[in-house]
Amino acid sequence: MSDAASDVVTEALEELRQRLQGLDEGAVADYIPQLAQADPDCFGLALVSMDGHRYRAGRCDTEFTLQSVTKPFVLALALAELGPEAVDRRVGTEPSGEAFNAISLDPATGRPANPMINAGAIAVTALVPAADPARRFARILECLGRFAGRPLAVDEAVYRSEAETGDRNRALAYLMRGTGALAGDPAEAVETYFRQCAVLATVDDLAVMAATLANGGVNPVTGAVVVPEPVAVRVLALMATCGMYDAAGDWMVRVGLPAKSGVSGGLVAAGPARFGIAVHSPPLDAVGNPVRGVAALRELSGRFGLHLMHNPAPAAATVVSLRRDEHGGEVAAQGALDFTAAERVVSALGECAPESPGTVLLDLDRVTAVDTTAEAMLRRALDLLTEQGHTVTVTGLPREG
Amino acid sequence: MSDAASDVVTEALEELRQRLQGLDEGAVADYIPQLAQADPDCFGLALVSMDGHRYRAGRCDTEFTLQSVTKPFVLALALAELGPEAVDRRVGTEPSGEAFNAISLDPATGRPANPMINAGAIAVTALVPAADPARRFARILECLGRFAGRPLAVDEAVYRSEAETGDRNRALAYLMRGTGALAGDPAEAVETYFRQCAVLATVDDLAVMAATLANGGVNPVTGAVVVPEPVAVRVLALMATCGMYDAAGDWMVRVGLPAKSGVSGGLVAAGPARFGIAVHSPPLDAVGNPVRGVAALRELSGRFGLHLMHNPAPAAATVVSLRRDEHGGEVAAQGALDFTAAERVVSALGECAPESPGTVLLDLDRVTAVDTTAEAMLRRALDLLTEQGHTVTVTGLPREG
Amino acid sequence: MSDAASDVVTEALEELRQRLQGLDEGAVADYIPQLAQADPDCFGLALVSMDGHRYRAGRCDTEFTLQSVTKPFVLALALAELGPEAVDRRVGTEPSGEAFNAISLDPATGRPANPMINAGAIAVTALVPAADPARRFARILECLGRFAGRPLAVDEAVYRSEAETGDRNRALAYLMRGTGALAGDPAEAVETYFRQCAVLATVDDLAVMAATLANGGVNPVTGAVVVPEPVAVRVLALMATCGMYDAAGDWMVRVGLPAKSGVSGGLVAAGPARFGIAVHSPPLDAVGNPVRGVAALRELSGRFGLHLMHNPAPAAATVVSLRRDEHGGEVAAQGALDFTAAERVVSALGECAPESPGTVLLDLDRVTAVDTTAEAMLRRALDLLTEQGHTVTVTGLPREG
Amino acid sequence: MSDAASDVVTEALEELRQRLQGLDEGAVADYIPQLAQADPDCFGLALVSMDGHRYRAGRCDTEFTLQSVTKPFVLALALAELGPEAVDRRVGTEPSGEAFNAISLDPATGRPANPMINAGAIAVTALVPAADPARRFARILECLGRFAGRPLAVDEAVYRSEAETGDRNRALAYLMRGTGALAGDPAEAVETYFRQCAVLATVDDLAVMAATLANGGVNPVTGAVVVPEPVAVRVLALMATCGMYDAAGDWMVRVGLPAKSGVSGGLVAAGPARFGIAVHSPPLDAVGNPVRGVAALRELSGRFGLHLMHNPAPAAATVVSLRRDEHGGEVAAQGALDFTAAERVVSALGECAPESPGTVLLDLDRVTAVDTTAEAMLRRALDLLTEQGHTVTVTGLPREG
Repeated sequence: MSDAASDVVTEALEELRQRLQGLDEGAVADYIPQLAQADPDCFGLALVSMDGHRYRAGRCDTEFTLQSVTKPFVLALALAELGPEAVDRRVGTEPSGEAFNAISLDPATGRPANPMINAGAIAVTALVPAADPARRFARILECLGRFAGRPLAVDEAVYRSEAETGDRNRALAYLMRGTGALAGDPAEAVETYFRQCAVLATVDDLAVMAATLANGGVNPVTGAVVVPEPVAVRVLALMATCGMYDAAGDWMVRVGLPAKSGVSGGLVAAGPARFGIAVHSPPLDAVGNPVRGVAALRELSGRFGLHLMHNPAPAAATVVSLRRDEHGGEVAAQGALDFTAAERVVSALGECAPESPGTVLLDLDRVTAVDTTAEAMLRRALDLLTEQGHTVTVTGLPREG
Repeated sequence: MSDAASDVVTEALEELRQRLQGLDEGAVADYIPQLAQADPDCFGLALVSMDGHRYRAGRCDTEFTLQSVTKPFVLALALAELGPEAVDRRVGTEPSGEAFNAISLDPATGRPANPMINAGAIAVTALVPAADPARRFARILECLGRFAGRPLAVDEAVYRSEAETGDRNRALAYLMRGTGALAGDPAEAVETYFRQCAVLATVDDLAVMAATLANGGVNPVTGAVVVPEPVAVRVLALMATCGMYDAAGDWMVRVGLPAKSGVSGGLVAAGPARFGIAVHSPPLDAVGNPVRGVAALRELSGRFGLHLMHNPAPAAATVVSLRRDEHGGEVAAQGALDFTAAERVVSALGECAPESPGTVLLDLDRVTAVDTTAEAMLRRALDLLTEQGHTVTVTGLPREG
Repeated sequence: MSDAASDVVTEALEELRQRLQGLDEGAVADYIPQLAQADPDCFGLALVSMDGHRYRAGRCDTEFTLQSVTKPFVLALALAELGPEAVDRRVGTEPSGEAFNAISLDPATGRPANPMINAGAIAVTALVPAADPARRFARILECLGRFAGRPLAVDEAVYRSEAETGDRNRALAYLMRGTGALAGDPAEAVETYFRQCAVLATVDDLAVMAATLANGGVNPVTGAVVVPEPVAVRVLALMATCGMYDAAGDWMVRVGLPAKSGVSGGLVAAGPARFGIAVHSPPLDAVGNPVRGVAALRELSGRFGLHLMHNPAPAAATVVSLRRDEHGGEVAAQGALDFTAAERVVSALGECAPESPGTVLLDLDRVTAVDTTAEAMLRRALDLLTEQGHTVTVTGLPREG
Repeated sequence: MSDAASDVVTEALEELRQRLQGLDEGAVADYIPQLAQADPDCFGLALVSMDGHRYRAGRCDTEFTLQSVTKPFVLALALAELGPEAVDRRVGTEPSGEAFNAISLDPATGRPANPMINAGAIAVTALVPAADPARRFARILECLGRFAGRPLAVDEAVYRSEAETGDRNRALAYLMRGTGALAGDPAEAVETYFRQCAVLATVDDLAVMAATLANGGVNPVTGAVVVPEPVAVRVLALMATCGMYDAAGDWMVRVGLPAKSGVSGGLVAAGPARFGIAVHSPPLDAVGNPVRGVAALRELSGRFGLHLMHNPAPAAATVVSLRRDEHGGEVAAQGALDFTAAERVVSALGECAPESPGTVLLDLDRVTAVDTTAEAMLRRALDLLTEQGHTVTVTGLPREG
């Protein structure tokens, strides 16, 4: 077997990496010594497909502390354990238009704006159910490991430094206990949050983590169901509006993918049902996003057509043939059927059915998957044709994967 | 031909309409008499597919003034005429977190937050190039008509009432000329904006308008290219973060579609490359969004799996067969090829290529479309296989539509 | 008669002027050409006492446009004509903590924060009752002239330039009509306000204007009652908290006098019942206050002990003698009697009254004035002594001035 | 001796108390049980003059915890110990326009807005120099006692309850250490602040405390110099703009006195060089000020003419006689001489001096005090007359008290 063909994606990543390596802007975070020592030239990027195919360029196996990049994954854990209502009671879902460490809570509800700013993330961390702080963190670490597909560890020196300089986060925690947004002891919540920020991973790990969210919560490399699909949808939605701090609108316009960045230079982005991407490069721009990471995502989105609002293909891909005469008709479909595709099939069935009762054939042999919406639509359409007196035959209706 | 099958979608819309008709909350806008007279029970919803198929329930042919629903479409006109840089110089791209008529401009740039709040929309309207105000409005009206697929008219009584009570919008216009966000005469800009708000259309029209944005700027009913695809992408991106006033995050979590509402009760939403939806029902909630429209979109998104972050189908739909022996291999693909699908095909080619030079067949007969990204990836992969000494044969590589 | 003695104050002003002439900071306002042409070295300061004595140093007879310095005086006119309730309905009384041209209105009431920021001043100007705009401005100009003690004129070139560049103020006016804070036509209100800002006066004029407010509304030079005393109190109170833009607290700490500055470099301050001060020097600091004017007031306040919170003198000045034996007692008082002084006199009466009925003498020959509070207190104390059986004699109880 | 006469002030206070007792609005603070148990009908008010005369009505010897009323007095201690620069580095001087427990710090400096909101008060408390927390609080308690003229104690139950519910204040403390506004340990600073809030005093005590500030830092009852005069001036200035939470402007307009309120219903106000007033009544209005206390101060200010901007007396009280002929002149003055009075005397001297050298007499026998400004002015005027050849004689120039 040859890797030559699959090098097509790698080549593109490598070309991008080389070009952006020269982008010499931004400054490494320096509020704790350990972050200040990061190599500003360290730069890696990786992409993982829904089939678990992995593509990489640059330094992808160097560990760094994930910092805020952990936020969406711990949110996913809390949502999976408690459901959206319990989390919503403590934390909002709106972009804050403010800095990542903003201290404003909603005046009416006392909740932080969203789970991607520090205040919201601390409240989410405190929600993870556990008998004591040590077990709470153990669950968080274990969950991050399932997202990555391997066990992860903590950088204890970074944790201790964060704890020493974390007065602002302590303030947020006390403030939130005062308003009811935080359950439990504020000092403990902040310590757990600092440990979470100090979890170590590589760009390779992060790309798998992002791909797991894109894949409806199923790790595409290990096959493990890490969180349920509705949880992954919700987390991606929050990343789309709140993940890139106070530049949500610009990010949606120029990149168009749910994403999350961290102060150590990590950045993840996800294309729902398509891919996970991770980048690491320590220098940050003025709002705290990694300079090379942002540039890389803008380029990738444009070159590969990854923008959520992009209209990638003509509309007629589902129905591959349609035949009709006075006695009956036949429709053949292909690919995966969701609402959009099922609408096309149903519409084609309507078109090919004869005016007087006749025969209708639906050939689904080349259909690879049918979601519950599509299945219900097909069944209803076939029922209606039967009620009209047609004789209906279906070949190859599969179960949903 | 029978409509029975296609009634499947209609049935679902009708069932939803009947249920939500009983949702008796919110209040009709009453700042001008003409809006106050709207029938609170008037309720219609429509969906248009990328093939131009139309589905509807309720009152879909009653005309009402579009109000703020015009904003994304006039933005599309300005972007198409002037390009994104010229528009960005005057108007930002960030959600404001404030009410639709907020008076805050960015302190550093003097620009309104985004083109979906009144200030931004007035600045955008003033940007539409024209020799004089009458011709500027004529272009706007003509463009809205192309989005709808039929000529539209203005409700002159509503226009006059808006003009009489529009002091806040006049204030915004003078403020923006002061900061440089508005070109030209403020009084004229506001008058043109008021006329634009008073344009009349039906739910049927609006659904086609939304579908045109979802379809990359091509009206799926008339086939007219109304705006270029990158303009449609940009407008949808701004609708996603700024379209639903100060509830952008909640909307993305619960509905997950770019959308725009108006004070007369109109609401449009778009699924990129999938559909356009329109709803009309006058009663508004506290933030100014139509109560039944919001409820309808939440239900439709959940029931039909329309959320942008939803992972609709298993991953293996593209490559339908893969054969390999010691002398060579063969890959057959189907459907529309974008980056994600092309990655699968290229990956499969790598898998089936023999270790020593041999033959590689790529069967694209069932492929319906290939976008530029996918085409480049395939060509590069085939080149690499050729360089490795393989004899490569392709059947059926189509041109991009 | 010799001026030698009275030169003591002049000497101090002149010494201060010479020293601060070298203070070479700040920048002349340049948003219209006429202001930009102001001589940055022009500098004059003047003080007028409650007796109408006038002291001056530097350029005190050069006319300049008063700009925002007109605000407290036009407010006084509106208050005198309409009373505080009518003005309060349109304009608040709180420091805004924002720039002079801030566009925020109170979200609950729609009113501008106070009459010293542009929005509030425009609303106040529009309140001045008149049959038409020309007569409204005529009344304003006439009133400013009575404050100054001579007729004033308008710099028409400055007025026209302001009108050309005044979009922000126009915005404020339309905004306020929208919220109900502004009565009448916004365009007209702004034109009248621009004319008011362009009224010409000298430092000498301004010092008399300030002294008139300090003197309870009576011009200490002409003797004219320009506004009632409660109006002057209210205007001074608003100058104390809102007069120096967004540095109200620092001004109260470091200067401790009600004051108002303007963009052309004028500055007025008032010591209630003590003096009016005016300074003119065009260069402004970052918040828009004149650099030399602020420095001059800080020095004058410190050197002359002018701070409102300063405790200028020991407590025992009122009662000059007190005599008591077993048959009776006698109290002699001096100076002007207000609540504080009357309390001392009444307290002394209590001390000197014999235990059994006797004679009580109150000698007010050296008392120069008695306000209504003090008079009532004295009368009540004498009644009580009479009720106790004492024979009470008073010499020299004057009428209030 | 008879108290009859001095009952004049008492009568007025008593009449006011009876009338306001019926003012049945507001709600007792209930965030801790001890405050919630306060008797809403408890109501007392007291006034202390600069001579130490004491007037009272209602419940004036019931102890209550002072809460925020301690803020200006502990600020005075910090200013006296460290000087204004050291305090300014940590805490600003501007009204916040926000609630007492607002969490916003200045974005540029990280400082709380002023020492009258909780954040600022905690920072001030932490500044009081001491070897350890116990000694820090001992100094604070001792200083409050010197203001009151008697030793004060702490309500330990209230302290413990405050400590249990004080998360918001803890948040503020951590936040301020993060920005550099707070020196030392946040947890300790907050504990000391809670103890300070729980100090017990009566209305009688509070009136003496306020009178001490009004009297330039000298306790008018005990004669003790508690803080230097410039410290008292600065504290009163800050009370004037920041003491009544977010209603500084309204308070200055309607009352016109520096003041400070507390959540337990205490309220102090001071007339510089005139009096101290205290009120206690637990029910609070919506912004957290005591309803009866605010009403009492409004009435007292109006009835007794206590407003700082009030012009209490005609201008001619200082110079009691002035004689002039061709050979010489004579001026007789009376009362306490400050800048304003000295200007009158100097002006009179200029008026009475003959044109050719002659004799000038200045009779200061009835002058009771001369401050340093006035003394320098008189000396300079007499020097100038001597230089002009006049023979100058002064009788009775006193030293400043």
